[in-house]
Amino acid sequence: MSDQPIDQPTDPYFEQALSIVLVEDNATDAELTIRALRRSRIGNNIKLLEDGAEALDFFFCRGEYAHRSMTNQPKVILLDLKLPRISGLEVLRQLKSDPRTQMIPVVVLTSSAEDQDMIESYQLGVNSYIVKPVDFEQFNQAVQQLGFYWILFNQLPVF
Amino acid sequence: MSDQPIDQPTDPYFEQALSIVLVEDNATDAELTIRALRRSRIGNNIKLLEDGAEALDFFFCRGEYAHRSMTNQPKVILLDLKLPRISGLEVLRQLKSDPRTQMIPVVVLTSSAEDQDMIESYQLGVNSYIVKPVDFEQFNQAVQQLGFYWILFNQLPVF
Repeated sequence: MSDQPIDQPTDPYFEQALSIVLVEDNATDAELTIRALRRSRIGNNIKLLEDGAEALDFFFCRGEYAHRSMTNQPKVILLDLKLPRISGLEVLRQLKSDPRTQMIPVVVLTSSAEDQDMIESYQLGVNSYIVKPVDFEQFNQAVQQLGFYWILFNQLPVF
Repeated sequence: MSDQPIDQPTDPYFEQALSIVLVEDNATDAELTIRALRRSRIGNNIKLLEDGAEALDFFFCRGEYAHRSMTNQPKVILLDLKLPRISGLEVLRQLKSDPRTQMIPVVVLTSSAEDQDMIESYQLGVNSYIVKPVDFEQFNQAVQQLGFYWILFNQLPVF
């Protein structure tokens, strides 16, 4: 038996396959979302990004994420709209207008139920738009449903 | 009391609000899908269309559907790819390239797990892509999950 656990890669640049990326600056909402996903055992590799500029660097493998591989993309991005530095709508626009990232499913998960935000999101090519329920139990249920749907049911080509 | 039931509109052009449109030429698959949706009480007004040309006439309110209102669109379209007359991919292309219909969520529901079909669908702007499970119970579960997700959770602007 080796001392090295077999599932621990020794390559420091090894990237575990991503399942969900959450782009959310509100710490409470982020914690609730990640907890709901973990409780239903969906998304064993969830990455949290806290502003729009960092999110773009992450998805386009720039800046501090320059070592990442463009082919290691999540099965779904959960995107808040009101983000520091670069807005969620601008992140969405850049993701959906680049052939390298346009196929990654993006679900807007926001407290905004304004028609104008929905219309712009759909025009930019969002895959789905979910208004965060205010009620705690309903919030949990919505997050779990969307996790199930995008991780277990939706199909993606092999990137 | 009137003899006229109060929930029966007298206007022959009255259109009940649509929930789901299924575009599917395979009668068995169509029946299974509609039954699964009805059993979980989602989609009280499901419309079945059996070929791509009829589907385009329906969504763009042309031909035999000229009396329809462009604002009465479903909360989700379930679209097969292999359709008579006009293919599912061409239906998707026309829906997603017209501002009047681009916001209607389209879920491809197909037996094709080929990467090329998925890639083309995502490039054309499909909202989600589901491969029909071969197993009967799994098929039921997938249809119910997607019904729940798109009818109860996903939000659309007021058309």
